[in-house]
Amino acid sequence: MKDEFVVIPKATISRLPLYFRVLSELDHVGVPIVSSEEMAAKIGITSSQLRKDLSYFGGLGIRGTGYDVSYLLAKIKEILGMNHHRHLAIIGAGKLGTALAGYGGFLQHNLEVKALFDIDEAKIGWKLGEIEVYHISELKPRKEELKLDIATITVPAAAAQQVTKAAVEAGFKAIWNFAPVRLEVPEDVHVRNEDLVVGVLTLSHHLSRKNQ
Amino acid sequence: MKDEFVVIPKATISRLPLYFRVLSELDHVGVPIVSSEEMAAKIGITSSQLRKDLSYFGGLGIRGTGYDVSYLLAKIKEILGMNHHRHLAIIGAGKLGTALAGYGGFLQHNLEVKALFDIDEAKIGWKLGEIEVYHISELKPRKEELKLDIATITVPAAAAQQVTKAAVEAGFKAIWNFAPVRLEVPEDVHVRNEDLVVGVLTLSHHLSRKNQ
Repeated sequence: MKDEFVVIPKATISRLPLYFRVLSELDHVGVPIVSSEEMAAKIGITSSQLRKDLSYFGGLGIRGTGYDVSYLLAKIKEILGMNHHRHLAIIGAGKLGTALAGYGGFLQHNLEVKALFDIDEAKIGWKLGEIEVYHISELKPRKEELKLDIATITVPAAAAQQVTKAAVEAGFKAIWNFAPVRLEVPEDVHVRNEDLVVGVLTLSHHLSRKNQ
Repeated sequence: MKDEFVVIPKATISRLPLYFRVLSELDHVGVPIVSSEEMAAKIGITSSQLRKDLSYFGGLGIRGTGYDVSYLLAKIKEILGMNHHRHLAIIGAGKLGTALAGYGGFLQHNLEVKALFDIDEAKIGWKLGEIEVYHISELKPRKEELKLDIATITVPAAAAQQVTKAAVEAGFKAIWNFAPVRLEVPEDVHVRNEDLVVGVLTLSHHLSRKNQ
């Protein structure tokens, strides 16, 4: 018999990383309880929206007191799949790809880069610590051998769609895209677009305000 | 006499990059008009929240028709300060720093990397195209000479707070932080934390759902 499974709206899921970030910060500085108003203000949504989001995960709030930070953090980690160990493939062993491969922040979140792929013959066989660079034609066998879950796209924009097609054909159902293009994928494949420019634009706004 | 200036809530500002992304996509594929419901669904907020947000920028919607995509996009670019040309400094000329320095997506958004800084004497004087690596002790004079606006922190976590202190002392009012630590800054300095792990976690969630 299968467990009952509550369908969580996409919009709520999209806000979970924000909850995760805010709760991690609170937990890090040792705050045990947080009110819905305080959390909502940090995230930039209304407290009623926040309470509605969190209601999908069961009665986690205590009326008149607030939310238990470490319990809620653990719950959100679970929902985000952070209790599963995930293996990342990085396609594109250029500067960004190798920077990500060397990034120290993955392991604490149960994420691990297991392989790099490139088309440049000069790079095939390189090792960054334990991580080897394979030819992109080896995507499918290496995916099975190394149990790769997520394909990270760090190739130039012009090559991104072609590389994504190869990843989908190799069986990847999750694509983490750093190329500044929108990728076309089948319906059962999830794409997360990482747009580095968007982050810096909010800073630009604040600088404009200062110069008024 | 100064123009009248409407104070836009922080929460609304924090959503502007999401509006920017959605509108850019619509504009790119040639959609001229979008309803508040459609845009809200793409972003993951309620349409009433969206209409409230956009009301701060004047009457941009046409009742019963929707929003003019290219007009709204231009307005949001203006509010985000994208009509100002901004100069970035990158502190930390390692893999991530040099990857960002070589990133092609900045210029189309009026952003330009003008200088790299490091403490490693072996790197000082390096050139990545037009961009030179300076010693971090030169932050203040180079900030003035090159009119640097935003300090991008790509040093290891252990060095991030110290480097941020140097950037603040050099007069930077905007910090784009890639180090996985929370930085302490004076009240008039804005920090944008770029947490690369958060993005990939939503993919991990989708993989968990598939395996149910």
